[in-house]
Amino acid sequence: MKNAFRHDIRVRYEETDAMGMVYYGNYARYLEVVRAEMIRAEGLSYVLMEEQGVLMPVLRMNVTYRGIAVYDDLIQAKSVVLGGIGKTITYKTELFVKDRLINESEVELIFLDRARRRPVACPAVFVTALEKFCVF
Amino acid sequence: MKNAFRHDIRVRYEETDAMGMVYYGNYARYLEVVRAEMIRAEGLSYVLMEEQGVLMPVLRMNVTYRGIAVYDDLIQAKSVVLGGIGKTITYKTELFVKDRLINESEVELIFLDRARRRPVACPAVFVTALEKFCVF
Amino acid sequence: MKNAFRHDIRVRYEETDAMGMVYYGNYARYLEVVRAEMIRAEGLSYVLMEEQGVLMPVLRMNVTYRGIAVYDDLIQAKSVVLGGIGKTITYKTELFVKDRLINESEVELIFLDRARRRPVACPAVFVTALEKFCVF
Amino acid sequence: MKNAFRHDIRVRYEETDAMGMVYYGNYARYLEVVRAEMIRAEGLSYVLMEEQGVLMPVLRMNVTYRGIAVYDDLIQAKSVVLGGIGKTITYKTELFVKDRLINESEVELIFLDRARRRPVACPAVFVTALEKFCVF
Repeated sequence: MKNAFRHDIRVRYEETDAMGMVYYGNYARYLEVVRAEMIRAEGLSYVLMEEQGVLMPVLRMNVTYRGIAVYDDLIQAKSVVLGGIGKTITYKTELFVKDRLINESEVELIFLDRARRRPVACPAVFVTALEKFCVF
Repeated sequence: MKNAFRHDIRVRYEETDAMGMVYYGNYARYLEVVRAEMIRAEGLSYVLMEEQGVLMPVLRMNVTYRGIAVYDDLIQAKSVVLGGIGKTITYKTELFVKDRLINESEVELIFLDRARRRPVACPAVFVTALEKFCVF
Repeated sequence: MKNAFRHDIRVRYEETDAMGMVYYGNYARYLEVVRAEMIRAEGLSYVLMEEQGVLMPVLRMNVTYRGIAVYDDLIQAKSVVLGGIGKTITYKTELFVKDRLINESEVELIFLDRARRRPVACPAVFVTALEKFCVF
Repeated sequence: MKNAFRHDIRVRYEETDAMGMVYYGNYARYLEVVRAEMIRAEGLSYVLMEEQGVLMPVLRMNVTYRGIAVYDDLIQAKSVVLGGIGKTITYKTELFVKDRLINESEVELIFLDRARRRPVACPAVFVTALEKFCVF
């Protein structure tokens, strides 16, 4: 994917299950790590977002499992932001193991004012930082 | 939902996160528990499936988050099987907290021969057991 | 153990690892569930504790692994409170699978005033409720 | 600690709980990562151990919680091997956040022949690799 942010994640033993592969629910953790590192790569952090009174709960997660990852695999993530960044943001992420696509996902999160629990616009500094990863 | 299997699950502290609510990735665990208990309610078990040499990895998971659950909430699950049961099976599940819908999902799993790692038909005894939860 | 509170917990697939058994770190979850259910059995809840402004972080956890649990096992827990209940409380818990001891642990938690982050005495209503499980 | 292996781990959102800090049971994951990275730093891997037919289940875990870690903290681990390496190995690990000690632990694991499920000696190549981290 063009403009994609790239990040590698090592599979932990705890993330595997009795089938000998990563548990299907644990991919959500990897996707969270990728989102956090994408922001950090631009000099910001999700902590800063919360300090500005904005939370980012997930609205929607669509995951397609195309292969497996096993213990100690190095998962290579490529992630972009789909469309623009308004009151929600949508990440499209592909995960690879040794250049083999194992996982595709879209995750949409909403920007929420912590005090009033109401949707708000993404803080401007984050919009600017993430623009380079946007795909239209 | 008509024909739905019902099962209650108590939220554990471990399943919450620093936003004070259930972590978005942990709903996959609840959905797994509901699938296991649906089979158990019909006198079978997923262990029996594995003993017959059949694994059930997940192909696809689509989750929409409509509300939150917090520590100690009693999550009420309603789950049906969408369509027929062939080489894959698709569960549609709704989760409620105090009769408020908080989570909707579809999860598709494939039946896999453990030895040959090839798709197989769902063992007949499971098809028969789960038919009562099928919605067309 | 005399005076022990008893509670059963079903092993989830997510809790297993690639060795085909429950991951060593996941026993902490079971011990948390047992503590919560011990309080609930006496008509109280940990939610009530937090509503009274008291948190219970863990100070110390000692676990000895004597056997394994696998997917779908029904873990039988027996748990007592060691000594009296002051500014801390210590639970001793034994976990069994089919009457075979698989896990022994001691977990000590402290009562903490949420606002001031200082140790406090256990609220009286909880002391009274848990006295029946105390072993001296 | 002298001879200590050092490794940093970033706290994930998923690892926090509703108290706003890392869940007490999740430290077991960090300790696992540190053990794996200690071996990797010496050019080996736990995968290689399993390929040699040796599993390493945990026998005993003693953890003392001296402080907290919150989301996005960078946990600094220092870990040594206590005593020699025979049929078991014991790791002593200290975790720090910004040079403040938050967690001390000892974890003992046993070397197990996978096929016969019997204790075996640690493969020689691992003994040699880990000797530099041993503290007597």
